[in-house]
Amino acid sequence: MRAPSGAFPHSSASYLLGNRIVRLFTPGRSYVGGHPYQPGVCFQDGIRRVDYVLTYNVKKSCRALRPSLSITANGFFRRLRRSLQCCTGQPSGANRDSAVEKAALDQQEEEKRLLRDEFEDNLREMGLELEKDEHSKIPGVGFLKIHAPWDVLCREAEFLKLKMPTKEVYQATSRSKMVKLKGFIEDLTKPLLPDVEESRTHNPKHVCYPFSREKQHFNIPIIFLSFQGFPSLLAKGIYTSAYPLHDVSILYNEWASYSSFYKFQPIGLVRKYFGDKIGLYFAWLGLYTQMLIFASVVGVLVFLYGCITVDHDIPSMEICDKRNNITMCPMCDRACGYWKLKMACGTARASHLFDNTATVLFSVFMALWASAFMENWKRKQMRLNYKWDLATFEEEEVRDHPRADYENKVKEKILKRIEKKPHKETKTVKLTWRDRCPAYITFTVSMLLMFFVSLAIVLAIVIYRVTTQAALQMSTVSTARSNVRLTVVSTAVIINLVVILILDEVYAKVAVWLTQLEVPKTDTSYEQRLIIKTFILKFLNSFSPIFYVAFMRGKLIGRPGKYLYVLGLYRMEECAHTGCLMELCIQLSITMLGKQLIQNNLFEIGIPKLKKLIKRFKSKREAGQQDPFSGNLRRYEKDHFLEPFGSLNPEYMEMIIQYGFVTLFVASFPLAPVFALLNNVLEIRLDAKKFIAELRRPVPARAKDIGIWYNILSGLSKVAIVVNAFVIAFTSDFIPRLVYQYGYSPDGTMHGFINHTLSYFNVTHFEPNTDPLQPFHLGYQVNVCRFKDYRLAPWSKTPYEVSKIYWAVLAARLAFVIIFQNVVMLMSDFVDWVVPDIPKEVTIRIYEEKKQMVEFFLKEEQCKTQSLPNIAPEGDRDQSNNQAYPQRL
Amino acid sequence: MRAPSGAFPHSSASYLLGNRIVRLFTPGRSYVGGHPYQPGVCFQDGIRRVDYVLTYNVKKSCRALRPSLSITANGFFRRLRRSLQCCTGQPSGANRDSAVEKAALDQQEEEKRLLRDEFEDNLREMGLELEKDEHSKIPGVGFLKIHAPWDVLCREAEFLKLKMPTKEVYQATSRSKMVKLKGFIEDLTKPLLPDVEESRTHNPKHVCYPFSREKQHFNIPIIFLSFQGFPSLLAKGIYTSAYPLHDVSILYNEWASYSSFYKFQPIGLVRKYFGDKIGLYFAWLGLYTQMLIFASVVGVLVFLYGCITVDHDIPSMEICDKRNNITMCPMCDRACGYWKLKMACGTARASHLFDNTATVLFSVFMALWASAFMENWKRKQMRLNYKWDLATFEEEEVRDHPRADYENKVKEKILKRIEKKPHKETKTVKLTWRDRCPAYITFTVSMLLMFFVSLAIVLAIVIYRVTTQAALQMSTVSTARSNVRLTVVSTAVIINLVVILILDEVYAKVAVWLTQLEVPKTDTSYEQRLIIKTFILKFLNSFSPIFYVAFMRGKLIGRPGKYLYVLGLYRMEECAHTGCLMELCIQLSITMLGKQLIQNNLFEIGIPKLKKLIKRFKSKREAGQQDPFSGNLRRYEKDHFLEPFGSLNPEYMEMIIQYGFVTLFVASFPLAPVFALLNNVLEIRLDAKKFIAELRRPVPARAKDIGIWYNILSGLSKVAIVVNAFVIAFTSDFIPRLVYQYGYSPDGTMHGFINHTLSYFNVTHFEPNTDPLQPFHLGYQVNVCRFKDYRLAPWSKTPYEVSKIYWAVLAARLAFVIIFQNVVMLMSDFVDWVVPDIPKEVTIRIYEEKKQMVEFFLKEEQCKTQSLPNIAPEGDRDQSNNQAYPQRL
Repeated sequence: MRAPSGAFPHSSASYLLGNRIVRLFTPGRSYVGGHPYQPGVCFQDGIRRVDYVLTYNVKKSCRALRPSLSITANGFFRRLRRSLQCCTGQPSGANRDSAVEKAALDQQEEEKRLLRDEFEDNLREMGLELEKDEHSKIPGVGFLKIHAPWDVLCREAEFLKLKMPTKEVYQATSRSKMVKLKGFIEDLTKPLLPDVEESRTHNPKHVCYPFSREKQHFNIPIIFLSFQGFPSLLAKGIYTSAYPLHDVSILYNEWASYSSFYKFQPIGLVRKYFGDKIGLYFAWLGLYTQMLIFASVVGVLVFLYGCITVDHDIPSMEICDKRNNITMCPMCDRACGYWKLKMACGTARASHLFDNTATVLFSVFMALWASAFMENWKRKQMRLNYKWDLATFEEEEVRDHPRADYENKVKEKILKRIEKKPHKETKTVKLTWRDRCPAYITFTVSMLLMFFVSLAIVLAIVIYRVTTQAALQMSTVSTARSNVRLTVVSTAVIINLVVILILDEVYAKVAVWLTQLEVPKTDTSYEQRLIIKTFILKFLNSFSPIFYVAFMRGKLIGRPGKYLYVLGLYRMEECAHTGCLMELCIQLSITMLGKQLIQNNLFEIGIPKLKKLIKRFKSKREAGQQDPFSGNLRRYEKDHFLEPFGSLNPEYMEMIIQYGFVTLFVASFPLAPVFALLNNVLEIRLDAKKFIAELRRPVPARAKDIGIWYNILSGLSKVAIVVNAFVIAFTSDFIPRLVYQYGYSPDGTMHGFINHTLSYFNVTHFEPNTDPLQPFHLGYQVNVCRFKDYRLAPWSKTPYEVSKIYWAVLAARLAFVIIFQNVVMLMSDFVDWVVPDIPKEVTIRIYEEKKQMVEFFLKEEQCKTQSLPNIAPEGDRDQSNNQAYPQRL
Repeated sequence: MRAPSGAFPHSSASYLLGNRIVRLFTPGRSYVGGHPYQPGVCFQDGIRRVDYVLTYNVKKSCRALRPSLSITANGFFRRLRRSLQCCTGQPSGANRDSAVEKAALDQQEEEKRLLRDEFEDNLREMGLELEKDEHSKIPGVGFLKIHAPWDVLCREAEFLKLKMPTKEVYQATSRSKMVKLKGFIEDLTKPLLPDVEESRTHNPKHVCYPFSREKQHFNIPIIFLSFQGFPSLLAKGIYTSAYPLHDVSILYNEWASYSSFYKFQPIGLVRKYFGDKIGLYFAWLGLYTQMLIFASVVGVLVFLYGCITVDHDIPSMEICDKRNNITMCPMCDRACGYWKLKMACGTARASHLFDNTATVLFSVFMALWASAFMENWKRKQMRLNYKWDLATFEEEEVRDHPRADYENKVKEKILKRIEKKPHKETKTVKLTWRDRCPAYITFTVSMLLMFFVSLAIVLAIVIYRVTTQAALQMSTVSTARSNVRLTVVSTAVIINLVVILILDEVYAKVAVWLTQLEVPKTDTSYEQRLIIKTFILKFLNSFSPIFYVAFMRGKLIGRPGKYLYVLGLYRMEECAHTGCLMELCIQLSITMLGKQLIQNNLFEIGIPKLKKLIKRFKSKREAGQQDPFSGNLRRYEKDHFLEPFGSLNPEYMEMIIQYGFVTLFVASFPLAPVFALLNNVLEIRLDAKKFIAELRRPVPARAKDIGIWYNILSGLSKVAIVVNAFVIAFTSDFIPRLVYQYGYSPDGTMHGFINHTLSYFNVTHFEPNTDPLQPFHLGYQVNVCRFKDYRLAPWSKTPYEVSKIYWAVLAARLAFVIIFQNVVMLMSDFVDWVVPDIPKEVTIRIYEEKKQMVEFFLKEEQCKTQSLPNIAPEGDRDQSNNQAYPQRL
């Protein structure tokens, strides 16, 4: 699959390639953006760039140090002395023991050194250029700097079938009207664009063609990918770490700073610097944040609608009406007394803010928003795929090398089999379902366990709430009593939050453990399994208390005189008089905000910083008084102190859980999108800073989509429709109000609704020892009190049975769920169907590009047939490109 | 994009290509299978194959005939005389008029002839070889036979980037265990395999590579595709028809015969003969039929379960119990009398056959079956894509040429614009939303109209049923009266069926008309719009009566003494005592069977045959006494009498509507899959026969999937879940029975259920003139009668109000819908998620193929670098392939 010389004329290729050669080889110039010369970015000669760094321990390998003894440097001698000390054993140690130990260590180190030498020879054979630095300012750490020359990159790029731009340039032409509109929009969004070259000019797109050499952003992974067995070298401790170098650049100013929070991200540069995978993450995060703007605006409007209409809401007016004189039954046994409905006035008004007609429309809107978001992302992804030429790159799971764990397990299995039947020939062995059975069982058991743990926590917090409430109710201070509900709910939620945060960390570990038990074959499969497990556990953890509040609480309370008891002691919780939505809202907002503030910001920024400080401090202590780290460290030394890049999964997970908060219960908390938006605006810059300054530069990885996260997102969006339907139907008072207004109201208004929802209770029907201690608490004798439920009156034939209205309301609620779910799903599906997955412009461009290539090919074809005898293509030899682009047929 | 000479060594290519050249050029040997020499398959030289035939009128073009006057043939002279007659006008006509007419006709014919000549020159320039036959046995028809030589095919194949097999052969290797199992299955299915070469041997797959020349089954469309403006020549009448030749082959015996109904289809051959599109249709139909086997087996089991348990069904036992003495209220006003519940015994028992617990499980099963079917099809499609090398072929809608209608419309628009503003430069004009607005309005209006027509028909049939029933009820013959319900229902359904069949044809025309109004730009878009419109209309037509029976009937009947009336005259229909499911079942089965039998078989086979006969008869009459059609017609003459191939859409539509019958209401008619299976087993062979013997051979079309049909199918599957949920909840008696058993039954059994579902009516409450004429009809005075509904008793405070039980049952029904829908959807999604869309083996094979290609490429690369000076690839010249495979660099 030689690059057809006609399609990529050498002269043009050489221009493009030459351009890049200069950029790559000129020291002090980043290929992302210009930045001043930095020590340690290049080899000693100041020309060859350091593409990759491997570190290893030189603490104990005295022999390796000996040849460089002659170097004169004060700090160095001190360090050397220490290394020699360690080589000769502790000065005041048991000599014989330490001698044996020393010998063993020496041999071990020697072995490692040999393996390193072998490995380095291999690298050199591959055409890579190496430079060692064992005398860096960091004691005990040796650096192996690797440089990949141009021809190696070319060879590897070709092998990986990377795409390469050709001389052909494709410039999209737009219609005149569109151009005007576009120009206007561009002027408008100009201040939002980051100040990088990419966004300033309309770069025409070069038509790309596979099997060729575009590698700009891939010069590093190539080395990584092409050398197998590399991770095992790290695992065995032969090398201690491996990382490409950071290249502090224009990204730092234009992307990773809080001051540019309002700007678009320079996604192209991000992707060039970090690779496709991280580029896609930030593109996704950016789109999500942009989409949140719409949701936030509508959410705020809905909230404002609630604020404005609160004074005209008839049910809360009726509750707050001073003339109303409804005596309510006690909220708990014995301790609580009768109370006046008026006292619920505040809660009722607050509930209206989140529980009104606009909320229903808002949840329909959010369901459509979710599917619009998914569609938008699909399109954005396609656009990026086209722009970054990932469209034709196919993920090849089968190609992935088996993981080391898997191979070990397979080896074990083979050994066992040979032990059993030594004469049977060894076929290709792989782990079967049977081998993984114990892991699956463990998995199931653990999942169930975690599920019950979550339930137990919910129950524990319920008990906390119930007991505290009871205790506070009994207190004699009346101010405490009036704010009882809010106090109890808030403290409980905060406790809950802390538990969630702790369990989140625990569950992350559990998920890793469970996945390792399963021994997935490839890295892709490992990652997928890990993600799914982590997601299930974290979702359970974050949302089980919320599900409890939304759907369980206040549903199973029994009735006065026959309350349900938890553990035979405490009554199940009731909701406020106007539905549980208010409580749900508090629960949601505190959990969401708390998680975001504490977990995302404190943990994410604080902990890496702390780790870095500790590392430096330790190193400093080792190096003695003199501080070698006062800014004059070389690049690769600086990067050594950074935390290694783990994976993107925690970032995604955080956002997905947030997405859950934004969509799942949005009917009860219309401000969720606003909070998410505020968080994410910071989150983008925070993540950017973290990736650029707190973590080692990750090895760029190829990807063409966000993988399983997309499935999880779309699953969540579907679940959100159902959950919102249930929240509106069962948690809010929307349906009872509708039923009253259109079924029972005498005058078609909401007047009388409150009375309608209250059942009667004859106080003489209290079971022994459950009647209030202070029956005259309100100042008068109570014969009949009221409670919120649809039950028959004490004077009916079947007192306290659920009434017909109860069933009618239940039927209405269920009918609403069916209608809401199906209508909204239909609408989402319609949005999904109407909006093409591939943007029209991309389809056209891909087609035009192809046509251009075909035309080119036909033209070339004609030329060839005319000049058949001249077999060798013209312009083969070119000055700038001679060696870099080896001539091919 | 030259074919790399290394990857496709000429020697190997020549072998493969040579092989095919022989197959193509040897007369009398089909490339599908050997068959005896047939006249008219080749040119006069007996060597060059006729790839394509164009026909035109020569009736009036005397001049064109003149040069061939010297040919001696008896029949010919007779024909010639007639043509001359027609040229000189009718022998006994008004001479002056006919002279003018004749001149005009002559000129027109002359023009057409010139255009033909020009067109033929163009064809020759493209390298095609032509042969004319204006003296065929069919008078007045000229044939232009086209042959595409090998090099033209190669050029076009290359241009279309068809894939070509290389020397590299990929043979999948399986594990030993699997091989055994596979062998066993193969032995088992051997008698099911068609007796063609394809299925007999394990053909190893040749690794294919794009931009190359595999064309075996594409030699015809290439000509068709590459010559634009071709359809317009047909439209203008310059040519009268265009078709490739049939090639009666092994397909006829092994595929298109009823005797091989139990065999698998030789899909590979079908695709080679008809092209990808029809190949995919038959593959889909085959898979659907296979999947129906499972559904049928389970359906029959469910039915048998109903049959077995009918004697143990307590509700029907209670109804049939002779001891029960329940007097029911009259079924209609005045004419009907009171009746005994015992009389409903037969219906109750019959209802149980379709309305039992197994039915619920069966609809869950069918939902899963539907998603398994969709998954299976996706996988099958991927497998075929791989096998037929369609995987990388991209549909390019943008590339499609605009349709002639569209271009005309655009021209009109340009002319109008020029009239208005003559000095404005003409930009690229396209039809905008505004131009299509009238069409959209017409569309909406027509759709609404059709919708109301469907409703009106449903209503009309309801009225028919009600009136007939009333009339029959009034009849004095008691035997007529007892079978009233069944008679009325059945006749109504048959009338309905006839109406449906007629409307189906009307709607098809309407859909075409509406689509043409819209003037879609491309053929693809035209087809899609047409399909959607046709589907909506036909779906409406077939299913609106069924939806009525399932969800409306018996729901709005009012109560005794206060019945609802249609048109103020007739009572709304009730259902049988044990729910409407029985009626639904009758409606479904008759509609489905009737449609299948009449529409599919009678229309599909009968009408083309009839048309062919008429055509032949006409031609015979024209040709005089002598019958030129007695079996010695040449191939292209025979094919001339066949109907032209329209499109696959009617075939798909028929199957999709059937799929609707099978899935949508399967809860009420578990035998639907069996009937569908029986129909489809025949349908495959019937369609095959039609395509091979009744229609002209279609031009093979490229396709990589079944297009929009897939979306419609998956949409139907989703709707089916909801519809089945509603059928079980509302149409069947399943939920009331459950509610009774677990909520109201005194002993937890079904005993007393019938009594529980009947409300009381005090006969003194009859409105004036609605009480029965014969109150003593049963022989005793009736004070209180019963009717089926949950209403309060006459002696309660609010007589005849719906009772609490009514709401409880309604809530239960709705809850069931929610649970059923979500659980089944979750299960389907799970099936969808677990089963990979691309079969593992295909993934692996694609990867292996790629790897093989890369290895090949690397090897070649090495060779090249070693022998750099020898620029020209070796083995360029080859004896067999010299001219066919022009040398390239």
